[in-house]
Amino acid sequence: MRLATRKGGTPDGELIVVSADGARCLPAGAKWPSLLAAMEQWPAASADLAQAAAALAAGEGAPLDTGELRAPLPRSWQWLDGSAFATHGQLMQIAFGMDPVDATRPLMYQGMSDRFLGPRDPVPFPDESLGIDFEGEFGVIVDAVPMGVTAEEAAGHIRLVVQINDWSLRTLAPIEMKTGFGWVQAKPACSMAPFAVTPDELGPDWRHGRVCLDLTVEWNGKRFGKVNGDQMAFSFPELVAHAARTRDLVAGTIIGSGTVSNAEYAERGSACISERRAIEIIAGGKPQTAFMAFGDEVCMQVRDGAGRDIFGQIRQEVVRA
Amino acid sequence: MRLATRKGGTPDGELIVVSADGARCLPAGAKWPSLLAAMEQWPAASADLAQAAAALAAGEGAPLDTGELRAPLPRSWQWLDGSAFATHGQLMQIAFGMDPVDATRPLMYQGMSDRFLGPRDPVPFPDESLGIDFEGEFGVIVDAVPMGVTAEEAAGHIRLVVQINDWSLRTLAPIEMKTGFGWVQAKPACSMAPFAVTPDELGPDWRHGRVCLDLTVEWNGKRFGKVNGDQMAFSFPELVAHAARTRDLVAGTIIGSGTVSNAEYAERGSACISERRAIEIIAGGKPQTAFMAFGDEVCMQVRDGAGRDIFGQIRQEVVRA
Repeated sequence: MRLATRKGGTPDGELIVVSADGARCLPAGAKWPSLLAAMEQWPAASADLAQAAAALAAGEGAPLDTGELRAPLPRSWQWLDGSAFATHGQLMQIAFGMDPVDATRPLMYQGMSDRFLGPRDPVPFPDESLGIDFEGEFGVIVDAVPMGVTAEEAAGHIRLVVQINDWSLRTLAPIEMKTGFGWVQAKPACSMAPFAVTPDELGPDWRHGRVCLDLTVEWNGKRFGKVNGDQMAFSFPELVAHAARTRDLVAGTIIGSGTVSNAEYAERGSACISERRAIEIIAGGKPQTAFMAFGDEVCMQVRDGAGRDIFGQIRQEVVRA
Repeated sequence: MRLATRKGGTPDGELIVVSADGARCLPAGAKWPSLLAAMEQWPAASADLAQAAAALAAGEGAPLDTGELRAPLPRSWQWLDGSAFATHGQLMQIAFGMDPVDATRPLMYQGMSDRFLGPRDPVPFPDESLGIDFEGEFGVIVDAVPMGVTAEEAAGHIRLVVQINDWSLRTLAPIEMKTGFGWVQAKPACSMAPFAVTPDELGPDWRHGRVCLDLTVEWNGKRFGKVNGDQMAFSFPELVAHAARTRDLVAGTIIGSGTVSNAEYAERGSACISERRAIEIIAGGKPQTAFMAFGDEVCMQVRDGAGRDIFGQIRQEVVRA
């Protein structure tokens, strides 16, 4: 099942169900006005939404206007972002002389969740000198998760999978990181690709609690990276259990993988500029690639082995606030 | 004006206006069902709420049942907590051998905001060995703040002042802090004192953007600290401007001061156990005071010079989850 949110309706947008080919849609209806509302009563909501999906499969529905799409969850009560790709962490540590972290524990911070930008929204920043960077990653949306769940139990709470662009301001990031308090200024609103999909939509590409698909990142129309989600050091269920150790997770909580990164970065490239710069520093002593400028565009897309566009495209321009 | 939220109504509770003596209340009515709704349209809401406050001043209203009170904001889209008391930071750095931080920038992290516990709610934790600690602090609630505001402009967006207990798990805190990612497991849900008050309610005790009042903290009925909010190294308007540097702040955002702490800690005590332990480590090489046990109670209260209870009491018991 593929869900999306279009403009209109509640402040949380209007929930719609999208056909398997992404061409048509049906509104979820008044009972499930928004995805956040559906997450709060997922068993009942998913049964109703599945009926709409069946109707779409039978040929019903109206053409989908992708220009009307917002983030599937335009806001949520909680966004906890991991950094689960070991290669990314290692490259950053080597390049920037950071202390190695304890590899037995997931890394995670709480980020801004009151607004997720839509897949085509322009992205406003106050200043180019802040080191504007994209971060392509995957995420999951859970229903209510009780404190203390095991990873096994957590797996059953993963209801939807999403693709996220975690916008980052690299000039500010190390200053905030050094305090130990995590990031506020360096991590403004993220963006989400149009479709939130149930794990079964991924078929065999959802395995070991990971999205085993290539995420393609283009910057100003040029391939920047094509990286696979399979190399997470911790699975999504493990990240959810980590998040829930001392708190109940509210329905609609989004848990992120962190920047997708592969050991084969020489062939596959990267999903953020900062990682490429780290590779350049390691190779040649200094970074070669500049961060984004106003007017630059980033595009992210995930296709499965059959060529199907799973999450829809993120295509965004960076603009002056 | 003093506002509170009682059980019932929306998932966000029912907004009520409370008399100056805290004895009586009037419902805010259907137009302003919750404090979050009021924050989203503050100019209109505050005018209506002021009418209810005037009616209360004229003797109207029903007796306030403090047992029915939730946190004034039982949830919000964003909670950004500072650490603005220099004494607290310095004591922690010395005792725990942390690197000194850049004192020219406020410290701030994003915390859990999907649930704020009520002033009398029991506080569930999975394990006593996690180093259960209270942190008495002040906070402000803002309406929508645009990205890039100055501190001067930010001052006008501060609509309410609250008193917060930022529950902390000290065994986990240094592990998470060391990663640079900030705290997730070490910072579960906070609690709020019953009344959110407009700055003018504090009279001359709201000055230089600070709450210049004593916060009294009792642990199991014994005085633990009586610390004044005047020694913040950064004012609340400065903290709001810091938070808004690269993001618009959503209406209802709560910005915290961090643990209230005074240079005269020898006489005034502390607002968290960890700080007292730091003082003990500095004085004698090791901590003497244990963290909280299940069944322990913490109480926080703020009285002004006339003896008036400004925010109402927090009185909570720590329990096994």
